[in-house]
Amino acid sequence: MSTCDPSSQLLQGGLTAVPGFFAAGLSSGIKKGGLADLALIYADTPCRVAGLFTQNQFCAAPLQLNKRHLEKGLGRAIVVNSGNANAFTGAQGMRDAEAMARAAAQSLGLPVDAVYVASTGVIGERLPLRRILEAVPKLCAALSDSGSAAAAKAIMTTDTFQKETAWEASVGAQRIRVGGIAKGSGMIHPNMATMLAFLATDVAMETALLQDALREAVNYSFNCVTIDGDTSTSDMALLFANGKKGHLIRTKDLRYRQFVALLKAACLALAKMLVRDGEGATKLIAIEVSGAKDRAAAQKIASSIARSLLVKTAFFGEDANWGRIVAAIGNAQVPVLEKEVDLSFGPTQLLRGGAYLGRDAEASVSYYLKRGEIELHVGLRSGEGSATVWTSDLSFDYVKINASYRS
Amino acid sequence: MSTCDPSSQLLQGGLTAVPGFFAAGLSSGIKKGGLADLALIYADTPCRVAGLFTQNQFCAAPLQLNKRHLEKGLGRAIVVNSGNANAFTGAQGMRDAEAMARAAAQSLGLPVDAVYVASTGVIGERLPLRRILEAVPKLCAALSDSGSAAAAKAIMTTDTFQKETAWEASVGAQRIRVGGIAKGSGMIHPNMATMLAFLATDVAMETALLQDALREAVNYSFNCVTIDGDTSTSDMALLFANGKKGHLIRTKDLRYRQFVALLKAACLALAKMLVRDGEGATKLIAIEVSGAKDRAAAQKIASSIARSLLVKTAFFGEDANWGRIVAAIGNAQVPVLEKEVDLSFGPTQLLRGGAYLGRDAEASVSYYLKRGEIELHVGLRSGEGSATVWTSDLSFDYVKINASYRS
Repeated sequence: MSTCDPSSQLLQGGLTAVPGFFAAGLSSGIKKGGLADLALIYADTPCRVAGLFTQNQFCAAPLQLNKRHLEKGLGRAIVVNSGNANAFTGAQGMRDAEAMARAAAQSLGLPVDAVYVASTGVIGERLPLRRILEAVPKLCAALSDSGSAAAAKAIMTTDTFQKETAWEASVGAQRIRVGGIAKGSGMIHPNMATMLAFLATDVAMETALLQDALREAVNYSFNCVTIDGDTSTSDMALLFANGKKGHLIRTKDLRYRQFVALLKAACLALAKMLVRDGEGATKLIAIEVSGAKDRAAAQKIASSIARSLLVKTAFFGEDANWGRIVAAIGNAQVPVLEKEVDLSFGPTQLLRGGAYLGRDAEASVSYYLKRGEIELHVGLRSGEGSATVWTSDLSFDYVKINASYRS
Repeated sequence: MSTCDPSSQLLQGGLTAVPGFFAAGLSSGIKKGGLADLALIYADTPCRVAGLFTQNQFCAAPLQLNKRHLEKGLGRAIVVNSGNANAFTGAQGMRDAEAMARAAAQSLGLPVDAVYVASTGVIGERLPLRRILEAVPKLCAALSDSGSAAAAKAIMTTDTFQKETAWEASVGAQRIRVGGIAKGSGMIHPNMATMLAFLATDVAMETALLQDALREAVNYSFNCVTIDGDTSTSDMALLFANGKKGHLIRTKDLRYRQFVALLKAACLALAKMLVRDGEGATKLIAIEVSGAKDRAAAQKIASSIARSLLVKTAFFGEDANWGRIVAAIGNAQVPVLEKEVDLSFGPTQLLRGGAYLGRDAEASVSYYLKRGEIELHVGLRSGEGSATVWTSDLSFDYVKINASYRS
């Protein structure tokens, strides 16, 4: 899926590759063993802000605070802790989230509603607020224009590597940048919010358009990845735009489209990292469905395959078990005829018009399945709709990690 | 959940505990190592038949045949093989299913449309028809009024034990029996069909009512269990009623209700066996939700908990990870307020009105979680709706079994 124009370019530096943004990360003692657990992102000028939040009924306290701050559509900083989600913590949780924002606002000399907060980790335990408040001044002092990696590291939970990306592309006459950091691992599933993602850009765009751009980019990236089908109470994406480059984009013109393509590229890069780092994942699997009635039908089918535990364990076993894949296609609640199903693994077709192409093709697929990156293509004959969903396999380690996460 | 009147009684003998029903099972060579793989159920008089079939788009050939035979609502025999699902096998699969029914019909001296067929096992490979045809005469000769266990054994795939049950209760002035066999393991999930279940009864009931009774019983039993959320292309429930006892039930009177309660008891007993034998399952978990707006809302919430991989792995790890449970409640797409959630594990309450009751309660829950049978109760304050869903934990062995099932 080409999501970006040919002039787009992958950069080093993550979120702080965007001029005007600073970041830091350190250990405040929430996590044991001196692991980094507190991050700060700071913009040296006021930004327009777009945000998307979990659809879980129990939206965690920090998200509720952010939604309030987002009403003005402006912001300067994001303070994030890992190790504790401050979720299902009632009125106390709300007070703790406010105290966390207030501490950062005071240290940075900002109004409190310019500060956004995020918390990720165990649900239902009170935030260790004192540790956070004590660490905030040090965190502010550590802000740096090369701090993206430190911040990316501090927001990790069961992630095994930090996730950051930076892209540049032409938007109108300007070269615009988008940089971001994210954390995932477990509970990765479509329907926003599927993770924490913090994105920065120097584009100048009206807030309502910025929100539309974020929604569009997220729908084609974070909402197209699934690991275990769970949705967390804490997940969100925030996009800060400092407007340092070019004239304000006010309509959905060519520049808007160019920016969305750039934002998609950045979000997709982060989303794929989330899948690759899914708990216990040994394979990154792209499931492409084409020829469906429309995009929604294609996405339903791709998601049904991506979510099937039987399919995911078969990929872990490197078994060309196409029967489970067709069973998953049949479970998508989309009308499909058996004789209209094509199925290919990478370059090798295994089903054509519903007919199995034989042991030789299957042997070649079995060989292909030993790779770490797998492409599965489902072709239908119902229309022009297509969609791609990324997922991981389901391994022993998924069970191991999640059976013992809290202890 | 009391599903049966106090006079109901659990009997020995499975399906053939019902007078007039005979069964057999043997090895036809579809499975390796001389494992039983072919079963026959036979009624010595014509039966009224009710049936429910998978909602998967790719309904396997045997089910398509059965739907045709079911149009008359009558039947005398069911022939079932394991080791091959005869699913996604196109027109050839249909011819093979017909040949299988014809062979049994000839051996038993029945019209072909009195014979129902079922196949379970690997999807997408042609049925080894010759082996089945050769074995059918021997199978007919082996029919016995104590053959339930042999038939139950022959329909197993990755099941680790055979599943049969028999119940008796008063329906009007008569003692009526329901006996049945089932197979499950993997792909167990609500929404019919979630398994193979074959049920026999001596009740006399009009076919349309019998169908309603089966649907009702299945909705409260098989459709309330979930292991991995997948739905197979081959699953079905068939109920044969030979009408040897009592006067024909023609309306939804007291006798109809009594029979439904009896049928539910039999289906629920089999459904719980399916969960207990879910692939790699180490625990049987009953998730009871009460106080929801209505039954549908309660069932959505219970299912969301039952399907969460994070919850299931936590149960495997015997971790009182209530944060994951509340996250799953929040994912059910049912409006719920945090402060209206009560949560108990067995006798111990852990959340009251959304508030965590402390480390002592949690320690007691942790001890409780070492049991093989666990009850989780979620209490809400939205209404009178309640539902129970049964599930298993997710263990290393689930991954192991499913990563290597075909090889």
